[in-house]
Amino acid sequence: MPPTVDVHTHIYPPSYMSLLRSRTTVPYIRPHPTDPTADERLIILPSEADSSATSNNNSPPTPPGRPIGQTYHSITSKLAFMNTHSIDISILSLANPWLDWLPPATAAETTRTTNDEIESLCADPSAGNRLYAFGTLPLSSTTTAAITAEISRLASPQLPHIRGVVMGTTGLGKGLDDPALDAIWQQLESNRQLVFLHPHYGLGSTAADVYGPRAAAAEYGHVLPLALGFPVETTVAVTRMLLAGVWDRFPDLKVLLAHSGGTLPFLAGRIESCIRHDGALGAKGWLGEGRRRSVWDVLRRNVYLDAVVYGDVGVGAAVGVSGVERVMFGTDHPFFPPLGGEEVWESVRSNEEAVEKAFGGDPEARDKVMGGNALRVFGIEWEG
Amino acid sequence: MPPTVDVHTHIYPPSYMSLLRSRTTVPYIRPHPTDPTADERLIILPSEADSSATSNNNSPPTPPGRPIGQTYHSITSKLAFMNTHSIDISILSLANPWLDWLPPATAAETTRTTNDEIESLCADPSAGNRLYAFGTLPLSSTTTAAITAEISRLASPQLPHIRGVVMGTTGLGKGLDDPALDAIWQQLESNRQLVFLHPHYGLGSTAADVYGPRAAAAEYGHVLPLALGFPVETTVAVTRMLLAGVWDRFPDLKVLLAHSGGTLPFLAGRIESCIRHDGALGAKGWLGEGRRRSVWDVLRRNVYLDAVVYGDVGVGAAVGVSGVERVMFGTDHPFFPPLGGEEVWESVRSNEEAVEKAFGGDPEARDKVMGGNALRVFGIEWEG
Repeated sequence: MPPTVDVHTHIYPPSYMSLLRSRTTVPYIRPHPTDPTADERLIILPSEADSSATSNNNSPPTPPGRPIGQTYHSITSKLAFMNTHSIDISILSLANPWLDWLPPATAAETTRTTNDEIESLCADPSAGNRLYAFGTLPLSSTTTAAITAEISRLASPQLPHIRGVVMGTTGLGKGLDDPALDAIWQQLESNRQLVFLHPHYGLGSTAADVYGPRAAAAEYGHVLPLALGFPVETTVAVTRMLLAGVWDRFPDLKVLLAHSGGTLPFLAGRIESCIRHDGALGAKGWLGEGRRRSVWDVLRRNVYLDAVVYGDVGVGAAVGVSGVERVMFGTDHPFFPPLGGEEVWESVRSNEEAVEKAFGGDPEARDKVMGGNALRVFGIEWEG
Repeated sequence: MPPTVDVHTHIYPPSYMSLLRSRTTVPYIRPHPTDPTADERLIILPSEADSSATSNNNSPPTPPGRPIGQTYHSITSKLAFMNTHSIDISILSLANPWLDWLPPATAAETTRTTNDEIESLCADPSAGNRLYAFGTLPLSSTTTAAITAEISRLASPQLPHIRGVVMGTTGLGKGLDDPALDAIWQQLESNRQLVFLHPHYGLGSTAADVYGPRAAAAEYGHVLPLALGFPVETTVAVTRMLLAGVWDRFPDLKVLLAHSGGTLPFLAGRIESCIRHDGALGAKGWLGEGRRRSVWDVLRRNVYLDAVVYGDVGVGAAVGVSGVERVMFGTDHPFFPPLGGEEVWESVRSNEEAVEKAFGGDPEARDKVMGGNALRVFGIEWEG
C-alpha cells in the first residue's frame, strides 16, 4: 500500500516569522493585545487588520487574526501532526503571501536564504526523509534573470528536497496572464518543475463591494473571503492564464491547483461554453480549429488538483475533469485547526472521509489519491 | 416518457423592450451605431457600455453589447426554438435585471402590467399550453406591503400560468441577507412559491479589480464576467442568505438556483468547513448543536438546481449535493446563440449531452432531470 502524502501543507520557517513580526502591513505578526502569555496573532487578511470580532455576550472581543503557535513554524509540531493523522510524507510550502512583498533589491538574496532554510528543515535527520517542499520565487526582484536563476537553482542537486515551486496569483504584479511571465513559464517548463498555484489576495475589492454590508460589519467572521474569495481567486487566475494562451505557448507547463482548483472543475463547462460563444473572441479568430487548447484539454494534461475540498462531491468533480491520476490528498495544515483544541483535526478528517467516500468501492483509486499519485508526480522513492 | 421542460429560459416582453429603449443606464437597447438595417443592440453589462471589442484585422470594431432580435421578445420565436430542440414546455422568466430599477412610485403598477403581459403570452392559444412563467416582484417599491401584495396576486387564480417568482441578488438593495426581506420570504414560504434566484450584478467591482488589466482592456471579450462573475454572484448571495439564517427562520422557503447554483455544489464542503472552523462564529454561539442548519441540509431540502452547467461533471455534482429529484434541465435561451447562426444551438446541445452522459445507464434519472421533476415542482399536468 502506498504511503499517505500531504501535498498541501504550509510552513512559516523561523526566519519568515521574524520577517512577519517586522512588517507594518498585512500579513504581519503582533503580540496578543491584552494577554502577554497568549500566542502571538497572525493577521493575514486586509479585513482583519482593522476589525475585531464582537461577541453577543459580555466576553471581551476576540483580537484580530488568529493565534500563531508552534504549528506554524515548528517541524517537530509538523511531524507530530503527521503522526497523529497517519501522514507519511508532507510536501511543505511557504504559506501565503510567500515572498511576493520583498523589497526588490534584496528579494533574490532573502529568497535564497528562505529556500535554503526550508531545504535544511527537510534534510534534517529528525525529519526521517518524510519532508519535501516547494521552493519560493523572488517575484519582486528587479530582473527576470534573478527569478529564472532561482528557478534553476531550486531544480539543482543543491536543494534535493525541493520538488517544484509555489506561487500566488499576482505574478509580477499584474496577474498570471502577464506576458512578462513567459520567461518564467519557459524556465519552469523546460526544467519540468511543478508550479503549486495558491490564493491569497481574494477578489481585490472591499468586503462591502463583494460580500455586502453585513460581511463588512464582520457579522460572518471570515467565512466569505476564505470559503469563496480564495477558491474564486484561483479560478480567475487560471482562467486568465488560459485566455492569455499560456498553455498554448507552454504545452508542458504543469500546475497543481490549491483547493481542488478553486471552482474550476465545476465551472469548466461554463468557461469553455462562454469562450466558444464569445463574439469578440470569434472576431479575433481565436476560436478557429487548432487556434487554442480547450479548458478540458488543459485540465487533463497540465493540471493537477489537490483534494482539499471537504466533500466527496468535490473530489468526484476533481477526478471527473482531471482523472484519478491527477488528484492528490492534502490538509492545508496549519490552517483550520479544531476550535476546541482536539488532537485529531476535523478539517483533515473531512478531507480523508471525502476521498474514502468518493472511492468507496475502489481502494486502488483511493490509494492513488491518498499518496500513490504524489510519489510519481514528485519523484519520491518510498520504502515503507 | 415525461416531456422535456426548460426551467431556465428568458423573455423580454414587448412592453419591457420599450422600457429598455428608454433607459439611459445599463441595461438598455440602442440602435446599431452604423448599420440602420441591423438588429438593435442590447447592452447588459456595465463593462459593455464604454467598450467595444477590437479586432486584429481591418474590419470595423464590433459595436457594444449583443444583437437583440426576435429571440428576445417573440413568443413565436420562442416556440420555434422549442420545436427545434424538442422542448415541450418552457417556464419563462423575465431576463435580468428584471424590474429592480423601476422608480419606486410606479414600481408596483409597472410590475403588475409586466406580469399580466407575461401571463397573457402564456395563456394565448398559440402557445398550446406549453408556456408557464415566473412572476417578477416590484422590489423597488416604497413599501414592503406592495411587494407582498404582488406575491399574493401572483399566486392567485388570476394568473394561472405564473408558477413562482424570479429574483436577482440585490433584494431591496442590500442583498439577500437583508433582514428587511423577512416579510417577503415569509409570504413566499406561506404561499409555497418557488423563488428562482438569478445573477446579474457580477462581483460589484471594476473589471480591473477582479479580472485584471487585460480583461479591463476587453482582450477576453465577456468571458470572465459571464463565466465566473455570474456563478460566483449566485454563490455569494446564497451563502449570505445561509449565514444570515434565512433558512433557519423560513425552513420551507424553496429556491431554484440559476446555473446549477453557480459554484455552490462544488464549494458546499468548503463553506460548511469554514463555518465550523470560524472562531468569531464560535464565539457568538452560532456553531452549537441545533443552532443552525448546515449547508448540506439546505441543499437537500430547500434548494433546486437547474442543469445549465455545460458538462456532465457539473450535473453530477449538482445531483450529488441536492439529489436527482431536485435538478432540472434548462437552456438559458435566448443567451449564448451559435456564433455561426446554426439552427441547432450548441449551448442547448451541450446541456442535453451533459445530462445524457451523467445518467448514461439510468434513463429514469435522466427523464426526471429532463422534465419529470419540473412537472412535479411546478405543478404542471401534461397529457403528452
